[in-house]
Amino acid sequence: MRYMSLVVVASAVALTACGDRPAQTSSAADQTTAAASAPVLPSWNEGPTRQSIVDFVDRVTDPASPDYVTPSERIAVFDNDGNLWAEQPLYFQLLFALDRVRAMADDHPEWRETEPLRAIIEDDRGALASIGEHELVEIVMATHAGLTIDEFDAIVAEWLATATHPRFGVPFTELVYQPMLELLSYLRNNEFKTFIVSGGGMDMIRSFAERVYGIPPEQVVGSAGELEFALVEGVPTLTKTPGINFVDDKAGKPVGIRRFIGRRPILASGNSNGDLQMLQYTAPGDRVALGLILHHDDGEREWAYDRASHVGRLDAALEEAPERGWTVISMKNDWKKVFPSPELP
Amino acid sequence: MRYMSLVVVASAVALTACGDRPAQTSSAADQTTAAASAPVLPSWNEGPTRQSIVDFVDRVTDPASPDYVTPSERIAVFDNDGNLWAEQPLYFQLLFALDRVRAMADDHPEWRETEPLRAIIEDDRGALASIGEHELVEIVMATHAGLTIDEFDAIVAEWLATATHPRFGVPFTELVYQPMLELLSYLRNNEFKTFIVSGGGMDMIRSFAERVYGIPPEQVVGSAGELEFALVEGVPTLTKTPGINFVDDKAGKPVGIRRFIGRRPILASGNSNGDLQMLQYTAPGDRVALGLILHHDDGEREWAYDRASHVGRLDAALEEAPERGWTVISMKNDWKKVFPSPELP
Repeated sequence: MRYMSLVVVASAVALTACGDRPAQTSSAADQTTAAASAPVLPSWNEGPTRQSIVDFVDRVTDPASPDYVTPSERIAVFDNDGNLWAEQPLYFQLLFALDRVRAMADDHPEWRETEPLRAIIEDDRGALASIGEHELVEIVMATHAGLTIDEFDAIVAEWLATATHPRFGVPFTELVYQPMLELLSYLRNNEFKTFIVSGGGMDMIRSFAERVYGIPPEQVVGSAGELEFALVEGVPTLTKTPGINFVDDKAGKPVGIRRFIGRRPILASGNSNGDLQMLQYTAPGDRVALGLILHHDDGEREWAYDRASHVGRLDAALEEAPERGWTVISMKNDWKKVFPSPELP
Repeated sequence: MRYMSLVVVASAVALTACGDRPAQTSSAADQTTAAASAPVLPSWNEGPTRQSIVDFVDRVTDPASPDYVTPSERIAVFDNDGNLWAEQPLYFQLLFALDRVRAMADDHPEWRETEPLRAIIEDDRGALASIGEHELVEIVMATHAGLTIDEFDAIVAEWLATATHPRFGVPFTELVYQPMLELLSYLRNNEFKTFIVSGGGMDMIRSFAERVYGIPPEQVVGSAGELEFALVEGVPTLTKTPGINFVDDKAGKPVGIRRFIGRRPILASGNSNGDLQMLQYTAPGDRVALGLILHHDDGEREWAYDRASHVGRLDAALEEAPERGWTVISMKNDWKKVFPSPELP
């Protein structure tokens, strides 16, 4: 995920065609490999990508290997948007924030005088096209600040339970990647500790990460707003306040890893330029570590985008991959199945 | 630990009597309770304090109990200074920072022109008495900023391996509390996840917490300076920069808990006013939770201090304890042994 190039992104929500759910691809669901092979990464096609993962795990877990790593140091970090779940046509958190603006609009008549809130409420596509990063922060501030964490968590839970994706028509948590779920389990079965390190706000990710990814809240690192603690009529209360404490993106990701995890990972998995520094820090090429880049090259089952995309732009990290020895995952070629549901590709 | 009242604290380093190691108290080491009882909290005397801990753990771990808590929600948070290890005559991190000033003084002749650095270098007790919070930040900045995290970690490791405590003459990591080590183990044996939530800088705590407390770096929350990531001649490097990102003390502790852990604990253990808000947040009195306050009332084996102390001041939290139902631990009466070593009380 990459947050710097959101200039035109927010406007795209207005342009998103809804309900254009693609025809089911029947190629994936029933594929099984030879019965003899263990169910390790079953949704991954055999080939150099899958092999590089299995080889790495074997190397660091075999006590006889010169590259053996003790379990406590087997830290694996995963970007979230576009890496564990989809991020098109817009980061799902941004869709949430835009829904919040619309839901709250009646209580805030003054928003009709304030850009970009007016543009969102009135679905003014021309004005939305001029939304920049600063305006996005304004949207988040206007909709999140002042909420207690319990109120915020309840709103997020409600949204995740009811909102549906414009293309696939399913709840957003169904748009997680089956092969990545298998990779997370495979690593944990090999005594890795799996973390999310996301540019997105950590509160929303934590609300579903344990249920969906098997990753508990304390292993979710992300961007964070400021919080304030007070006794409100004697009740201890944490309230979101305006202000950003930390942006866990790009050069912020290694900082977040040091601050929240305190160990250097041996596996980093990302999909965009926002993950470049996390990949450099984890797998510079001269230590025992694995860097993974998910390349969205599957326009049929998911989306195909990289260098020219406003969401999840990928060029620098892709160019640096050969030099640093990172493994590039082709969604199209390396994955038998994209999403868990039999109803989805 | 409480950081707000450090006004006169730093000066005390010059006043500290060295080597006044107390006579060994022979009362503790050999006490064993009835052979029939399991080795749960063996260094704790039988009585209402110990019983309140055991009763709480039984309540939340018995699936038949109405207060049963699922293992993933069994989060326990511990203050560090004065709670897991000693904090007299000064916070050990402050002793470290003062040692750093002295060690670096020859390379920084300009420090002899700059208060409070000059006062520290020249052991000017009169000037040291005027050191306030702002000056303390200056000390940390001057000694830590510009170091890479690898350099900093190496300096901390060296200091912890070689520096000794002025009263007890042992490395600081020997001044951890044996009963608290047992409490940490007891909780983990009951599927609690144990965290440190300290006002101190998290980097130093992480350097010994796993070895000494069995708490891995990713479960240490603390105050944090700013960090910067860059490729230095191609090498990914994190460097400490001037600036404080987060002060994990007082009202900052519940914020740190939400930000780093993302769940509300069911057990909080502290020893000073700096822990008041963490205790309020965890154990307000109307939910299943245990609040523990360690009262330093053992001037013979350790130190006796509370309301009048500049280090670890304890008054508000002590006064609120009965109303909120917190358990106050008397070091003198509830602990058979203070430190792990047979050579120490």
